[in-house]
Amino acid sequence: MIELESLINAHTDGYSLEQDFYLAPEIFDHDMTKLLSRRWLLVDHESRIPSTGDYFLFEVGVESIIIIRDEERQVNAFFNVCRHRGSRICSDLEGNRSRLTCPYHSWTYNLEGELRQPTLMPSDFDKSKFSLHSCHTRVFHGLIFICLTEDTPPDFDREFGEFSDILDFHGFSQAKIAIKRDYPNACNWKLVVENFLECYHCASAHKEYCSVHPKDQLLALGAGPNSGPLEALKAYQPTWDAWKDNVERLGHPLPEFANDEHSLHMSQLSRLPINDKSFDSETRDGSLGSKKLMGQFKECDQGETAIVFNPVSYILASNDFAMMARFTPRDVVNTDVQLTWLVHEDAKPNEDYDPDNIAWIWDTTIKQDKKITMNNHAGVLSSRYQPGRYSTQESMVVQFIRWYLNAIS
Amino acid sequence: MIELESLINAHTDGYSLEQDFYLAPEIFDHDMTKLLSRRWLLVDHESRIPSTGDYFLFEVGVESIIIIRDEERQVNAFFNVCRHRGSRICSDLEGNRSRLTCPYHSWTYNLEGELRQPTLMPSDFDKSKFSLHSCHTRVFHGLIFICLTEDTPPDFDREFGEFSDILDFHGFSQAKIAIKRDYPNACNWKLVVENFLECYHCASAHKEYCSVHPKDQLLALGAGPNSGPLEALKAYQPTWDAWKDNVERLGHPLPEFANDEHSLHMSQLSRLPINDKSFDSETRDGSLGSKKLMGQFKECDQGETAIVFNPVSYILASNDFAMMARFTPRDVVNTDVQLTWLVHEDAKPNEDYDPDNIAWIWDTTIKQDKKITMNNHAGVLSSRYQPGRYSTQESMVVQFIRWYLNAIS
Amino acid sequence: MIELESLINAHTDGYSLEQDFYLAPEIFDHDMTKLLSRRWLLVDHESRIPSTGDYFLFEVGVESIIIIRDEERQVNAFFNVCRHRGSRICSDLEGNRSRLTCPYHSWTYNLEGELRQPTLMPSDFDKSKFSLHSCHTRVFHGLIFICLTEDTPPDFDREFGEFSDILDFHGFSQAKIAIKRDYPNACNWKLVVENFLECYHCASAHKEYCSVHPKDQLLALGAGPNSGPLEALKAYQPTWDAWKDNVERLGHPLPEFANDEHSLHMSQLSRLPINDKSFDSETRDGSLGSKKLMGQFKECDQGETAIVFNPVSYILASNDFAMMARFTPRDVVNTDVQLTWLVHEDAKPNEDYDPDNIAWIWDTTIKQDKKITMNNHAGVLSSRYQPGRYSTQESMVVQFIRWYLNAIS
Repeated sequence: MIELESLINAHTDGYSLEQDFYLAPEIFDHDMTKLLSRRWLLVDHESRIPSTGDYFLFEVGVESIIIIRDEERQVNAFFNVCRHRGSRICSDLEGNRSRLTCPYHSWTYNLEGELRQPTLMPSDFDKSKFSLHSCHTRVFHGLIFICLTEDTPPDFDREFGEFSDILDFHGFSQAKIAIKRDYPNACNWKLVVENFLECYHCASAHKEYCSVHPKDQLLALGAGPNSGPLEALKAYQPTWDAWKDNVERLGHPLPEFANDEHSLHMSQLSRLPINDKSFDSETRDGSLGSKKLMGQFKECDQGETAIVFNPVSYILASNDFAMMARFTPRDVVNTDVQLTWLVHEDAKPNEDYDPDNIAWIWDTTIKQDKKITMNNHAGVLSSRYQPGRYSTQESMVVQFIRWYLNAIS
Repeated sequence: MIELESLINAHTDGYSLEQDFYLAPEIFDHDMTKLLSRRWLLVDHESRIPSTGDYFLFEVGVESIIIIRDEERQVNAFFNVCRHRGSRICSDLEGNRSRLTCPYHSWTYNLEGELRQPTLMPSDFDKSKFSLHSCHTRVFHGLIFICLTEDTPPDFDREFGEFSDILDFHGFSQAKIAIKRDYPNACNWKLVVENFLECYHCASAHKEYCSVHPKDQLLALGAGPNSGPLEALKAYQPTWDAWKDNVERLGHPLPEFANDEHSLHMSQLSRLPINDKSFDSETRDGSLGSKKLMGQFKECDQGETAIVFNPVSYILASNDFAMMARFTPRDVVNTDVQLTWLVHEDAKPNEDYDPDNIAWIWDTTIKQDKKITMNNHAGVLSSRYQPGRYSTQESMVVQFIRWYLNAIS
Repeated sequence: MIELESLINAHTDGYSLEQDFYLAPEIFDHDMTKLLSRRWLLVDHESRIPSTGDYFLFEVGVESIIIIRDEERQVNAFFNVCRHRGSRICSDLEGNRSRLTCPYHSWTYNLEGELRQPTLMPSDFDKSKFSLHSCHTRVFHGLIFICLTEDTPPDFDREFGEFSDILDFHGFSQAKIAIKRDYPNACNWKLVVENFLECYHCASAHKEYCSVHPKDQLLALGAGPNSGPLEALKAYQPTWDAWKDNVERLGHPLPEFANDEHSLHMSQLSRLPINDKSFDSETRDGSLGSKKLMGQFKECDQGETAIVFNPVSYILASNDFAMMARFTPRDVVNTDVQLTWLVHEDAKPNEDYDPDNIAWIWDTTIKQDKKITMNNHAGVLSSRYQPGRYSTQESMVVQFIRWYLNAIS
């Protein structure tokens, strides 16, 4: 048996985790139970299920969650487990259902999860006690969040109220999905997160990404305001400030905050210029990816909004489109990475935007990340793996490790 | 470690099993050792191995059993493990062998499993102590049964003597295999059994099956005389009685008994009409599947004989052909389902019977069952899975769960 | 938990091992830690990496080892684990690197494994403490050996000094790789070794091998001087002696020794005639496989030199070419078998030698061995598997089992 407490005590701050944290199935179970089930997870944009009865499945760990829109146009989430004998109710990954009828014995639930009286049950059977197990759900500016816990979930508004203005300005409620792509990754979820939270590897691994964003900015702020060395931030500050002045002149928002390792979600928000050259959007040449600006943007401010809801739920938004990244642990060595690109709900594919063009930079970058994180996982298997010292450009990773260890302690 | 006793005590009668019973490898080992190794299992019809030296392999759990006909035309069964260094002796799933010679070092056994003196063994080597490990075998009306235990197996005649007359009347000793098909199923064996022991799911999942058998009969007796609600049985009784009168008039047998959860094998026997319309056989339109009636049937009585040797060994026999179902656990999440169709030994394929026609209803039905049981297994993985209440049409499943828990306690 | 001590005590000398030794992951870990990591393993011939920067990966258990030639033309070996965050540094199985640069964050090591100062590390970071984990290496007559232990490895010269003269006579320093083939084998590594250490199975399984070597020789000496029954050795001695007389007349060496189960490596050396008919080389018809004799051979002595460095590292050398066999455990049920054929460094493919011709006998034989050892593994899974008595032609296997049990005790 893994002794979690002594493992945690053995950890040195500023270093990567001990081997078992990446490899032991017991610790993965712990990650799910103590941490990920008790946080709000971003699962999709509600434009995925516009009509009553539209649903999709969200598969996380051993769970399958049905996320479905009901007659009142509410989005509900249920565990995909029939209360009769446990069969999955939906097996297709998405579709439309007027009722949730189990394919096994036709037990039928309405879109609020309530069981219609099944035939042939004993007379003392009380159907009101056999509603589907519901999963906490919250739709926030068009974004669907769930929380897996059976207990009371964290207070959503207290955790994410501060994001409301910027999500509103970006018009996420009037967005739609332009593209969605899956990148199943055979490595532990924490290696995916560590990778996403630092840009120390950008120069080595992401040529294309470095052609869209300037080197000095990536060094200073590549994984957000807290991610680079102090000197680099100082050197970049004038460029950033000049950009901020222009943004203020345009009357666009400039929120910035970062919750630390003692917070529940380690959520963060910041706005940065895309490039010091004239880049209106995070595209190959900086030209707009979509002709329809999103939300309240009337004029391009050449900025990108970085939203961290938690270390597995992100949005990176240009003025014209946004990329939503979802990292979903499946088991100790498998993590589903899904990217979704959002545009203005009125933007027309191929006319207002070219799907491949807006997907290009992150599709390219995340495929490179998949390769290096699987390579990282392979190395961690060795008897010679030891926790390694993080660089000054990996301070967000250091914070993540602290947050993680706090959460599972 | 799974604590079996507290798991068993936690069970509520009338509900499905606790999650670990379906998922824990330790419990699967227990299932094999305490239950399935100590029961007689139906493995095939002896027409599969008509000649001396004909053999086939029966693979169950981690075991491979050689079932072979010897010079005296006896059917013997041996563990497929050479007594020298443990190599498998036969690797092809079926064939003919004049002797059982291990491909590794040519240790050679006769068809009774006795070792011929191998070359170059130390002088104190006593070959009489190195016969193949034999497996208990019994051929009963052409049907081959084995029992895996090293101890004394259950008394076969005491357990199955009552089946002799009906097996004789159906002429299983003069049958032959018409078709055999495999449906490997990625779910726990108990989910396969539960599925087979109730017809509560027939309306949802088995359109074709419901076109062959009438709805009120499936409700009353779909999984045998004890399987449906009492009211349904009462409603159906007149139809059943009318059919019985005709069967008696023809002088055909009408045995019926059901051993309960306290018995060793939970074996059952019953005869039912196929349909209240004029169905001579369990085929698409009710016409005979084979022109040669089996056994002592001279005239069609439009009945079907349901024989349960134990919850993993079944025969369903029309007057003209029979379907034998074998559910074989391989590991905790894999169960081999094999169906074999038997006809009169003189019936000629394509002339007297069309193999696809006689296979149609159960081939269709078992493929549907495979899908729903795998779906069931997927749902049981969830943290929200709870034992569920069985309906009044699932009383045979309730009995199976009791039998299972008695057996492993 | 497996209780190793009681398992070891339960063993009877002269019998194969108890089931858990072949199947239990805990024992595999023990095999790696206590035994295989503490022995010198033959990994390849240095002609595989002739130039500075040439490298290949050796994958054993969970480890990946980079074997690379440095600027001083030394062969070094390093664990393929970056000291930063554990990523693998090389992912291609072979190639050329002027420096070892991790693809993740570009941490860069020279070919001696020393870390060049990485950018952006905290000021107290001492790069001298973050060299690559080196792996003990020794090149001996062109053959590359490694030892995985973190401790002091066994004294190479004490262990293998005696092999120097014969390796020199065969000219392994002036050899090159002609062919290399992989035969991944899904069985425990000890079953591969047991198979290779006896010729009791040759008559059953290796028709081609028996056409190259005469039956009475295989019986007496098929797996080396200690491998057959005494009577067979006596019967063969005159033939062997006549061959030895001729070898002495030619002035060729005739070393012979065998370290027993109490030695660290159970290493052995012997020379034998290939056939009593006129076979110059271990080829289909006995004609030379390569026109360029190796080392100091000027005239054919029709002998074969059998070199056992340890039970997973072998060379079988004719006068004109040599076959190197490497058995590498990957996990409890997977063992990589790799054969490499060496010829004189000046020999030209298709002109001096036909690669398929020199590979023929062992390529054929090892494929047969793969099949029978996987068959052996399958049988060992059975509850009826028991340790089996070895024959008098398997005495080298008996010795191996003793050596193995000594080593892990």
